[in-house]
Amino acid sequence: MVDGALMPATEKLLSLQKEDFLGIQKKLSDQISHTACLFARTLSEICETEIFFKFENLQYTASFKERGALYKLMQLDENQKQKGVIAMSAGNHAQALAYHARRLGIPSTIVMPAATPFIKIHLTRQAGARVMLEGETLSQSEKEARRIAQEEDLTFVHPYDDEDVILGQSSALVEMLADIPSLDAILVPVGGGGLLAGTALAARALCPGLSVIGVEVENYASMSALLDGRTPDCGGATIAEGIAVKQPGQKTLAVTRALNLKVVTVNEASLETAVALLANIEKTVVEGAGAAGLAFLLEKPDALRGKKVGIVLSGGNIDSRILAAVLLRDLARQGRITRLRLEIADSPGALAEVAGRIGQEGGNIIDVSHQRIFAALSLKSAYLDIALETRDNTHRSAVIQSLKNSGYKVEILEALERLHPATAQI
Amino acid sequence: MVDGALMPATEKLLSLQKEDFLGIQKKLSDQISHTACLFARTLSEICETEIFFKFENLQYTASFKERGALYKLMQLDENQKQKGVIAMSAGNHAQALAYHARRLGIPSTIVMPAATPFIKIHLTRQAGARVMLEGETLSQSEKEARRIAQEEDLTFVHPYDDEDVILGQSSALVEMLADIPSLDAILVPVGGGGLLAGTALAARALCPGLSVIGVEVENYASMSALLDGRTPDCGGATIAEGIAVKQPGQKTLAVTRALNLKVVTVNEASLETAVALLANIEKTVVEGAGAAGLAFLLEKPDALRGKKVGIVLSGGNIDSRILAAVLLRDLARQGRITRLRLEIADSPGALAEVAGRIGQEGGNIIDVSHQRIFAALSLKSAYLDIALETRDNTHRSAVIQSLKNSGYKVEILEALERLHPATAQI
Repeated sequence: MVDGALMPATEKLLSLQKEDFLGIQKKLSDQISHTACLFARTLSEICETEIFFKFENLQYTASFKERGALYKLMQLDENQKQKGVIAMSAGNHAQALAYHARRLGIPSTIVMPAATPFIKIHLTRQAGARVMLEGETLSQSEKEARRIAQEEDLTFVHPYDDEDVILGQSSALVEMLADIPSLDAILVPVGGGGLLAGTALAARALCPGLSVIGVEVENYASMSALLDGRTPDCGGATIAEGIAVKQPGQKTLAVTRALNLKVVTVNEASLETAVALLANIEKTVVEGAGAAGLAFLLEKPDALRGKKVGIVLSGGNIDSRILAAVLLRDLARQGRITRLRLEIADSPGALAEVAGRIGQEGGNIIDVSHQRIFAALSLKSAYLDIALETRDNTHRSAVIQSLKNSGYKVEILEALERLHPATAQI
Repeated sequence: MVDGALMPATEKLLSLQKEDFLGIQKKLSDQISHTACLFARTLSEICETEIFFKFENLQYTASFKERGALYKLMQLDENQKQKGVIAMSAGNHAQALAYHARRLGIPSTIVMPAATPFIKIHLTRQAGARVMLEGETLSQSEKEARRIAQEEDLTFVHPYDDEDVILGQSSALVEMLADIPSLDAILVPVGGGGLLAGTALAARALCPGLSVIGVEVENYASMSALLDGRTPDCGGATIAEGIAVKQPGQKTLAVTRALNLKVVTVNEASLETAVALLANIEKTVVEGAGAAGLAFLLEKPDALRGKKVGIVLSGGNIDSRILAAVLLRDLARQGRITRLRLEIADSPGALAEVAGRIGQEGGNIIDVSHQRIFAALSLKSAYLDIALETRDNTHRSAVIQSLKNSGYKVEILEALERLHPATAQI
């Protein structure tokens, strides 16, 4: 598609008025949860920013993607509805489309990369879709989905680069403004840019003073790159698989450019901390992408200090194993779990002595192992690896100092390595 | 206290009418969150029971305990308010009382056992309380708290065995019935019995047909024992520390007896599964005690099949490490993570061969270690311990069968042992 071809679509989107966006939200309102938008007291204090979370992780398929998918389905004519829809997705778009298509009696086909985790295939089938495993990557799957669409005369539903999908996503902001009318800024995660474009279009029509800020994860800062005139260079592991997109949409990019939107990036550590804080303080389970807005406030506390900020918790589909690892890594960061390596004499009583010393200081030993074979030590010595629980960083230092005072050589092993949760399959 | 002395208090509680309970809820309404009570579609399908969750884990201090604590504080006269309150608690009652006392300008003192985890001391201090660490057990702390109360002329606020606290807890059900008027049954966790008594009293006045069922964890089934005329015999580890109470209140017991309430028990495994399901499906973080109601439906699917059941998710204060362990243990139960021990030749290429076989079957190796020293094998053999990720139990069996077909001896190690999350300090 050439740039010129985008213009009419973009212009149409930009011409929409307040009533249009209210109308879209109204059309969706009896088939989508109007999720809560709640003030977060403790996190507001921590970030010195007045934070309101929009709990899109509490939609039935646990993401905002239902909005765009459903709105697209509602725009189809009877013939298209009978023939059915097809999409390429390994994630939230797949479940959202499959679920609402079934509800509306529309056949749906989801093409997923061959290596998609079984659990996602299972959930999408359960939601009512025909699932086809084709291609090694998402772009190969997309090619295959478009081929099948043509062959079987199905309507292809792009996860973000589609006017109707973009407009459907706008409804989240319409709800937020109905609940909290006086926001200064809103932070939304950016992958392909559908939520960003939809939100910004609605903001422009309903609340022109509202600053709309997109948040990308640094390994996949493709929208930022294009806005800066650079070629995106994406790759690597991230827990924010929902926004690990190498190439944003052309329509979403056009809207982002036309409205001169700001897109910022966050790093992996902030995302993990944000996921852990949302679980520990807000008692809510959010996937990596969904935590992007809070991650930005944690990383750049000055950016919006004192402002009234809406944050879309865009989804809650995080693998249990990743969530568990994120929680444990967060404890490690707080100094509450540490791996230590001690050089000890390989003789009776050595472990008891170390354990006694740690116990006296109020530390708790979670796990212990001896390393002999690989120890570059005399045969009379061994390494003792200890997983230690302490109250915080200060307490941890005190325990370690006490061991050193007793004559032990103590090395802090990097516990984070072993727990690395990033396993996104791009 | 002799049995006769309880009667007037119990009779007063039993004499309260609909207007009284509506009035109590109204008094609390601008200082307590009217938490959402939402239909849980997926879990309703799984349990074949129409489930409505009351999200008390989303109160500011993350438990329903604020209701009773605040109502008690509101009943104090000016002199009592000036002198202040004192309580014994290592958990949710401490934070609830400290938080609302500070809000109302009432000094508060919380006595905690000496071994209370630092994080709980910290949170309670942060909530505005003077924290005193006294006694080895909760009952020693209570004795000390009562001594200080007398010495300093403070009002002792019992976490459950207090008419005003019981009445405050009744407000959760009043809110639920306002939101979902036609419940058949309500499941509430039982520790000391305050929530059970408050709920049952309100139900009797507002909705006499509603069946109120208390849920205890089997290791601490003290209320059940007393109702059956047995002496409670409690102890052991549980993730439901919030209801790990060895002796329920006398007033709460009197109400439970007078209203002939049913109290059931759940086991530790059901509690863990319920916590994991609430995180995975409802995207909400609930502590062990808070998951008791759902645990009961999982354990006894016939008990309330087809009924409309309210479940109070009573609190969300679960330690990150416990939550992480619960999530991982749940994966192990589903057959998604398994520890295997293989006997292999201690020669080059042995690991590659095993890894290749597992990869061919679509299994994922998370962690691997060799065991030589303790292996009761010839020096030419070794044990290979593998943490294996599979899709489900069927897939796990296929991977193991494939290894066996290749001639390996495979033993499934009990992964749950190592991950045991129960660390309640009673």
